[in-house]
Amino acid sequence: MPPESREFDRQEAEALIREGRGPEVHDYLEQLPPPERARLLSRLDEELRAGLIGLLAPGDAAELLDSLGEAQAVEILETLPTDLAARVVDRVPSDEQADLLAECDREIAEKILAAMSPEEAVDARRLMQYEWDTAGGMMISEYLSFAAEETVRAIGADMDAHREEYAGYDIQYLYLTDGVGRLEGVLPIRDLLLARPEEPARAVMIPDPVAVRVDQELHELYGFFQEHHYLGLPVVDAAGRLLGVLQRSAVEESMSEEATENYLKVSGLLGEDELRSMPLVYRSRRRLSWLSINVVLNVIAASVIALNQDILAQVIALAVFLPIISDMSGCSGNQAVGVSVRELTLGLVRPRELWHVFRKEIGVGLLNGAVLGALVAVAGGLWQQNPWFGLVVGLALLLNTVVAVLIGGLVPLALKGLRLDPALASGPILTTVTDMCGFFLVLFLAGRFLPLLA
Amino acid sequence: MPPESREFDRQEAEALIREGRGPEVHDYLEQLPPPERARLLSRLDEELRAGLIGLLAPGDAAELLDSLGEAQAVEILETLPTDLAARVVDRVPSDEQADLLAECDREIAEKILAAMSPEEAVDARRLMQYEWDTAGGMMISEYLSFAAEETVRAIGADMDAHREEYAGYDIQYLYLTDGVGRLEGVLPIRDLLLARPEEPARAVMIPDPVAVRVDQELHELYGFFQEHHYLGLPVVDAAGRLLGVLQRSAVEESMSEEATENYLKVSGLLGEDELRSMPLVYRSRRRLSWLSINVVLNVIAASVIALNQDILAQVIALAVFLPIISDMSGCSGNQAVGVSVRELTLGLVRPRELWHVFRKEIGVGLLNGAVLGALVAVAGGLWQQNPWFGLVVGLALLLNTVVAVLIGGLVPLALKGLRLDPALASGPILTTVTDMCGFFLVLFLAGRFLPLLA
Repeated sequence: MPPESREFDRQEAEALIREGRGPEVHDYLEQLPPPERARLLSRLDEELRAGLIGLLAPGDAAELLDSLGEAQAVEILETLPTDLAARVVDRVPSDEQADLLAECDREIAEKILAAMSPEEAVDARRLMQYEWDTAGGMMISEYLSFAAEETVRAIGADMDAHREEYAGYDIQYLYLTDGVGRLEGVLPIRDLLLARPEEPARAVMIPDPVAVRVDQELHELYGFFQEHHYLGLPVVDAAGRLLGVLQRSAVEESMSEEATENYLKVSGLLGEDELRSMPLVYRSRRRLSWLSINVVLNVIAASVIALNQDILAQVIALAVFLPIISDMSGCSGNQAVGVSVRELTLGLVRPRELWHVFRKEIGVGLLNGAVLGALVAVAGGLWQQNPWFGLVVGLALLLNTVVAVLIGGLVPLALKGLRLDPALASGPILTTVTDMCGFFLVLFLAGRFLPLLA
Repeated sequence: MPPESREFDRQEAEALIREGRGPEVHDYLEQLPPPERARLLSRLDEELRAGLIGLLAPGDAAELLDSLGEAQAVEILETLPTDLAARVVDRVPSDEQADLLAECDREIAEKILAAMSPEEAVDARRLMQYEWDTAGGMMISEYLSFAAEETVRAIGADMDAHREEYAGYDIQYLYLTDGVGRLEGVLPIRDLLLARPEEPARAVMIPDPVAVRVDQELHELYGFFQEHHYLGLPVVDAAGRLLGVLQRSAVEESMSEEATENYLKVSGLLGEDELRSMPLVYRSRRRLSWLSINVVLNVIAASVIALNQDILAQVIALAVFLPIISDMSGCSGNQAVGVSVRELTLGLVRPRELWHVFRKEIGVGLLNGAVLGALVAVAGGLWQQNPWFGLVVGLALLLNTVVAVLIGGLVPLALKGLRLDPALASGPILTTVTDMCGFFLVLFLAGRFLPLLA
């Protein structure tokens, strides 16, 4: 049974660290549930955190780091003394190793790489060259491969001799290669147990195994694992050379990461998770990078009001409806963005199917625009005791809802077609355009009906 | 190698279905990449979709359904003839079976359950009683369990006799129980191969194995799998009785689902994915459920402007800045919501740590508010050729940014503490309060400085 939910005691933990009691620190962490461990680390200052990591065996520290979210792991890594960081990273599984170092400040990553064991550093550098969402970026180097002509006995002997080193490996399958490293076959470990010792592996292996290409992308790989029940697949380059092993769990983790990133982007948070343990100025600057774009776009949109101040001055009650129409259109448009981003992710729509999305959105826009427009028209008409006033604001909202869902539905496709990030850029484009259009519609329609309103 | 990316040809697919050519339909689907299969299904009308499913062997249809996103699978299931739906669901793995039926319209789900094979229906009903994000909701029934006193030979014989039935099972481990079904131990399948046939399983099993409780929740389980390298764990009830097996991949899939749901919620989409293949009225109604709440909240917020129309009438230029301040505060607040929801998900903050979040947010609010306020103040002051005008709008934005990040940071914790959904309800609360507060600040400050502005 996992340990029952209990909370850390900050004083107790800090005392153990300060007194340098390694085994007690280890036991203390062991009895905390994993999220509570993460929370404890987020509340210690830099020095104590480094103290804690230093007191653990490198393998335990690596496991601890690996159990944290990536943002937190990177944050800790960047503040550790280089030697300590290198010792810990040496023990992290290779795919995570590369991810962590790729996310670290470049200079710090170089220092850590230089201090790591040369073998591990070579592996990490090799994996760092692949994008995180390709087979290369998700594959691990901890797998067993042998020349296909080796005998079952020789392979068994090697496995016995390196028992300890291979303990953390994924050894459901052995991968067999030819003289130049090209994948020839796979051998399930239980078939190895049952094979005659003097046979070459080639005689008992499964030839021409299913493999994925190192540059295949996340969604394609996800579909592939959805369809087949493999726990892991070999990764090869264009020439068929074995480069690593891709585990199902790595693909699922990346899908989860992608969904999280989409959530953060639509919340206006760029890049990795922001954690409140990070320094104030750093957090502020990261959020400002998004806000400062928005403030400019907002000013541009509001300039439509500035240009039509004379109409507004004559029907001041319209000022009440400008933010309503801006916000409601934003909501309607965001829903369409959400649907398009999801359909793109699931592969249900292709970037050039603009017409398909147009047809599907215009109906929703008209229907929802009519409902919302009617609501606002009634509210406005009753408030101002003037049906023409209601007509102006209601009609503006109806038309602007149609504009919003079309823009919201189509912009993600267009951005994806341009190889830009639809989850990131759709929001600001949407709000700016719908705001401008909404303000214009209200004030333009009011101008047409001015004698009836003022 | 997975098939290279190719697109479906609608005419070709429809012709094969209409002509009832089962094997050709199967082959046609086989050679499409999985996302393209999903896209094809989303473009067929109900009748053709049912035709296609009916032409496949039930096992193949189940695999096809299982490879789709849940929303799409449910959509298809709901429109299939009951008998066909039941035949297909019979062959879906048990955890997915329960998920699909739980998402279906209740009446349809009951009909499908009634038409399913009784054994499968009992399993599905049993699993449907658990929440999707608990061990019970994620576990599968396809595992092997035996009485611990059975001999290795008897177990081997049973496995041989049911070879076909067990083919889709997770058989890394056998689970061994006592007379009343309590979990006693696990037996790795390779240990079974090496054990003497006449020994009872109890003699070679690993006793007191790690297990999870049926009611443990997603985040706890995720932390647990992060920490340990198990591919699957037995699930037990409070009395220690074996109920199912929880696979690592099921936990990772649920984490990914949760992140996706958060993304959809913040986009203003409730419940499951909306797909554009769904009927227009249904899609419109789902989106309206969110929009109609928002329109009411918007009217409430805008009433602050209505109550201060006299001030606005005297300084009409303020109307330009009302939407800017509303939108910018919304952005700042949303960022804080995003960080809080993430920290809650990762377990880095607990719902009652309001004071911790308050201290961490107020600094960011002051800093970012000062920067944004200064920008807006300069823009406003220059435009109106009046520094006091700039001061009013800048100060309002500064203060409202602080309000927004505090509300954005704290509301998710409060909602979580009340066991409400922070990702869902934080947005509307935030926007309404910051809008009201922002409009009030601008108009109140303008009222104070009125002689200097007008």
